[in-house]
Amino acid sequence: MERIGIGFLGCGNIGSGVFRLLEEQGEQIERNEGVTFEVKRVLVRSLQKKRACRVPEELLTDRVDDVLNDPQISIVMEFMGGVEPAASYMIRALSAGKTVITANKMALATRWQDIWEAARKHGAGLYYEASVCGAIPIIRALTDSLQANRIHSVMGIINGTTNYILSRMSSEGAAYEDVLAQAQRLGLAEPDPTADVEGYDAAYKLSILSTLAFHRHVPVECVYREGITEITPLDVQCGKAFGLTLKLLAIAKEEDGRIQVRVHPTFIPDAHPLASVSDSFNAVHIDGHACGEMMFYGRGAGDYPTASALVSDLIKAAKSKRHAWPAVQGEVSQVADDWTCVHFIRMLAVDKPGVLSMVSGKLAEHGVSIASMMQKDRDPHTGYAQLVFLTHRAGERAVRRALSEMDAQMVSQVRIIRVEGDERSI
Amino acid sequence: MERIGIGFLGCGNIGSGVFRLLEEQGEQIERNEGVTFEVKRVLVRSLQKKRACRVPEELLTDRVDDVLNDPQISIVMEFMGGVEPAASYMIRALSAGKTVITANKMALATRWQDIWEAARKHGAGLYYEASVCGAIPIIRALTDSLQANRIHSVMGIINGTTNYILSRMSSEGAAYEDVLAQAQRLGLAEPDPTADVEGYDAAYKLSILSTLAFHRHVPVECVYREGITEITPLDVQCGKAFGLTLKLLAIAKEEDGRIQVRVHPTFIPDAHPLASVSDSFNAVHIDGHACGEMMFYGRGAGDYPTASALVSDLIKAAKSKRHAWPAVQGEVSQVADDWTCVHFIRMLAVDKPGVLSMVSGKLAEHGVSIASMMQKDRDPHTGYAQLVFLTHRAGERAVRRALSEMDAQMVSQVRIIRVEGDERSI
Repeated sequence: MERIGIGFLGCGNIGSGVFRLLEEQGEQIERNEGVTFEVKRVLVRSLQKKRACRVPEELLTDRVDDVLNDPQISIVMEFMGGVEPAASYMIRALSAGKTVITANKMALATRWQDIWEAARKHGAGLYYEASVCGAIPIIRALTDSLQANRIHSVMGIINGTTNYILSRMSSEGAAYEDVLAQAQRLGLAEPDPTADVEGYDAAYKLSILSTLAFHRHVPVECVYREGITEITPLDVQCGKAFGLTLKLLAIAKEEDGRIQVRVHPTFIPDAHPLASVSDSFNAVHIDGHACGEMMFYGRGAGDYPTASALVSDLIKAAKSKRHAWPAVQGEVSQVADDWTCVHFIRMLAVDKPGVLSMVSGKLAEHGVSIASMMQKDRDPHTGYAQLVFLTHRAGERAVRRALSEMDAQMVSQVRIIRVEGDERSI
Repeated sequence: MERIGIGFLGCGNIGSGVFRLLEEQGEQIERNEGVTFEVKRVLVRSLQKKRACRVPEELLTDRVDDVLNDPQISIVMEFMGGVEPAASYMIRALSAGKTVITANKMALATRWQDIWEAARKHGAGLYYEASVCGAIPIIRALTDSLQANRIHSVMGIINGTTNYILSRMSSEGAAYEDVLAQAQRLGLAEPDPTADVEGYDAAYKLSILSTLAFHRHVPVECVYREGITEITPLDVQCGKAFGLTLKLLAIAKEEDGRIQVRVHPTFIPDAHPLASVSDSFNAVHIDGHACGEMMFYGRGAGDYPTASALVSDLIKAAKSKRHAWPAVQGEVSQVADDWTCVHFIRMLAVDKPGVLSMVSGKLAEHGVSIASMMQKDRDPHTGYAQLVFLTHRAGERAVRRALSEMDAQMVSQVRIIRVEGDERSI
């Protein structure tokens, strides 16, 4: 029986989850995998704080050196979150030849090059399955299962909070603010929800996923990002009328030799596999030239789902005689800042002759053609109505240019939401 | 650069797919994974036959020894299908210390013990990701990602042909025979469809999945099996009225310490993630104590999706310094032959007072309670109508006993279809 000493950096919800899961399943893991894990030291901020697991007091320390310099510890699990000091600690552990296991997408996405350089240079293992989509083995899918594929696209619902909010807005017709407040009460959204609702969290994860999918480092700064705070029940409702479901999607695509990486509210056809992923569930849809269409669905957060991925990394690390590093050659030289897709356009228009001709004329001038149109919510007193269009596939820049040139006397409050998925099914 | 010689046993659609994928992606694999594969010999039945790939003639042979005895070949890929001679060839290759990669669920399920014994005894690698659900990395999910879980259940749509047939029956209200004929024309069903439509193919795959999920060998003979040939458009339609979708599910569960393994037509709530898996797609739903609910979705068959999994096994095998064998301890001592679930019961009943009281009375006598009921298709001339019930969770044996005791003058043509999924959402 191989005995492996591990050290924890941090012991909040996730760390406690790992501790409890190891306690609970240690015997099964021993029997099935032939390896025993022993938690040797646990770095915490406060030695007194109450924890969600029963770590023996003598293991607790508030000095990081007690973990990083302990020769009995060969695997360091990082649960601190945030970029610093987590990244520096990981780099120190790797530089000491220790294996690092982390769920920290933020540190990983922000300091990708430094962290990997440390791992490579010192022949140390680095495992991060839990950094994207909790229990879903999406990292392994890209690195260990789809290696023979040219990946065309990765599209994911990779933030549970925003998916919960959009699902509720869709099922109840509720307003963003109300659902957010409800999510905060349920502990599904942070008191400061910015990282989730503005798409930062998804952007970190997309940086990691796209780097693995395209074998070139995609820095998080390259990810175009737009949150869900401006979404209204009317958007959701108009989409429904066209058979579309609204999701915050993280999208990575290779098109015409250029990589697109973007996080933004996106309509997808109701029949798309991602459309039925609701509540706080996550899912990633992959299109590869050999595997075809695939989807991976599950719990993207939570102590136990995340611990499930972390302990699987622990077992993988322990059983690897030689660590594997992802096949990433250099950095992407350029990401696309314009892309082609179907556009959902909604605007407030005066209901009089000439408006439709002005709108369609302007769009046509820029090569944008309309696939379908509806008028909604005409107010007999003001004479205003909502005009909603779906375009055929068109360049986003062209669409924006056309909209900027429209007669402001006739239309205002223009909103664009991108639409993804097979155009024939829209 | 590591160069690895491989030998093919068989070169039909799947073998040709692997050959083409290696030709096409060889360079990417070399660059990313640091390994080159060279096909050294290809065993075929007829040297003259036309093939879907350009194997150089000098590699072809009709003598298996040319592959198995070639010292330059360290990995043997088996694409012959069927139990024999495939199993014997695999065992010979393993006994010679060669790694075996196979998509052959039938040989694997039928000869599990013999094949693994040969692998273990000779320290040889055995990889079989492609044997279940083509491109979907479901084997890896169970062996490499969910090791820390106690798996409660595995439920899958793991046969594409039957899923295509049931999807068409559902969307078009068509009869089984008509859709089968259509599937045969499209090449989605074999001229002799028995293996698919009677659930044999799914049973082989379920034997493999449940063995890995529960860490004990579940012989294929233990799998309860019922095909889809008796399903009528009326069944599908009545299910719809209750918000249920009909699928051929392969189900493995651990309940009350006993393992259930069964393949049969199953209703699931429309909102269940498996319900929207249509056409020839496959998906596997897993419920684990730590990971929670997960689903893996994709192409379960086809030359390229299957080759995607086979080549990923090839890379994994080539990069493994030490092969891993699944953690399986002994054989299951007993599988359940009775189980508890919601039952859909449909019967032809004379439309007169007392029928409902007789039916519900008999059910109650055996502890079966009714959750909902509807009457359908009453014929004013004959006075007969369809009575359709959903029970609360009940033991199947109790349900069958109750039905067998019913007054044959009042009800006939009784059909039972099992219902799975969260009872609250039915």
